Amino acid sequence: MEHKNPLRIVLVAPRNPLNIGAAARAMSNFGCLELRLVNPYEVAFREARSAVKAHKVLEKAKEYSTLGEAVADCGLVVGTTSIGHRALEHPLKRLELGGKLIARKLASAPVALLFGSEKFGLSNADMSHCHWLMRIPTREEHGSMNLGQAVAVCLYEIVRSPDAAKALPETRREARAGDVERITAMLEEILEQSGYVHERVEGSTELKLRRLIRRMKLNAHDAEVWLGILRQIRWKLLS
Amino acid sequence: MEHKNPLRIVLVAPRNPLNIGAAARAMSNFGCLELRLVNPYEVAFREARSAVKAHKVLEKAKEYSTLGEAVADCGLVVGTTSIGHRALEHPLKRLELGGKLIARKLASAPVALLFGSEKFGLSNADMSHCHWLMRIPTREEHGSMNLGQAVAVCLYEIVRSPDAAKALPETRREARAGDVERITAMLEEILEQSGYVHERVEGSTELKLRRLIRRMKLNAHDAEVWLGILRQIRWKLLS
Repeated sequence: MEHKNPLRIVLVAPRNPLNIGAAARAMSNFGCLELRLVNPYEVAFREARSAVKAHKVLEKAKEYSTLGEAVADCGLVVGTTSIGHRALEHPLKRLELGGKLIARKLASAPVALLFGSEKFGLSNADMSHCHWLMRIPTREEHGSMNLGQAVAVCLYEIVRSPDAAKALPETRREARAGDVERITAMLEEILEQSGYVHERVEGSTELKLRRLIRRMKLNAHDAEVWLGILRQIRWKLLS
Repeated sequence: MEHKNPLRIVLVAPRNPLNIGAAARAMSNFGCLELRLVNPYEVAFREARSAVKAHKVLEKAKEYSTLGEAVADCGLVVGTTSIGHRALEHPLKRLELGGKLIARKLASAPVALLFGSEKFGLSNADMSHCHWLMRIPTREEHGSMNLGQAVAVCLYEIVRSPDAAKALPETRREARAGDVERITAMLEEILEQSGYVHERVEGSTELKLRRLIRRMKLNAHDAEVWLGILRQIRWKLLS
């Protein structure tokens, strides 16, 4: 499994070098070697690189300036949350089930698992890139876990299940997140052109559209069809 | 479960205050509140007491000078190990099974789960107090986990509910077929308007679109949103 585990751990805006190092160590422990960082606090990333026992993961870690780029090649994007007060716009699954679904999906496509910053977690904008959200079953009185520990627990659940090995490879090819985002952007442009967007508060429209498109659960072929359809509509609107 | 979870986490000779704090935080997360320390490095324990978000567990933590005393009231004593080079004299179970056995035993008796020092793990003398040993399924090349992360992963496995992995009944309201068909028809009209349809053989387009829309598996609310979107685009194209 080791070298081809297509699970990407994506840390969004991590601040603490100890946490980045701890996440990398857990990844190494569980044979999940692809770490991606979105806008890490620069000093933190530099310091983390010296973390013992995780240098291989950290050396190969890639930095991105937007979350969209960091998950572009993935067929499934899952965000983690400890749900505080925020109302969630996404389906929420407990880790026991979510881990199984991720393990199953990994048989056919790369999956991105997102962790927000230590202080604020994932923003609504971050979450709008996700197909669904996952929650570790901590107790209500103290739900928020340390970042490195949360990564370790999630990886354990994803790797643990002996059933995961038996999961059938799905024949369906998921649309890559990059294409899904292209569809979202093109639809948004069309809706601006056609005056639909102005009916709504502008800022939230993008997030709503992003979630709407993700709920379509597009396969790779349909994503291409939709891109063709939208391209044509856009061309017509502008002509 | 919370206040009577009779699982005791026993740290033997821990050295690093951050690790003690991290272990306590994971315990608090998973509702396991009884921490016991055997010969902690004194400074480490003092510093750990200030760890954020785990003070309740740390305040109540008890110190012992021998492991025997620390586990005296327990009906089952389990040691954790990443098995390095040492030959083990004890039965060794993977966490997936061991966690289940511990959860079962907790129904009738307190259980102690032991973690050794960061550097050396449990000694043979420590292990001699154990009924059996447990191993987290990390990969061979990098088996040894960070102490706080190991505690978190073990507690998750013990606390996790096997039932939670069964898919929840979804409360989602499916779009009615009539609305789905309306969406299909409206999209077809738009595609004729924009010249997309002529690229394809006319007759089959309708069927292709119908299948394409059905694969979206729309819920009732999203169907309305899509109807609004398409209505607006059509209006713009015709105007």
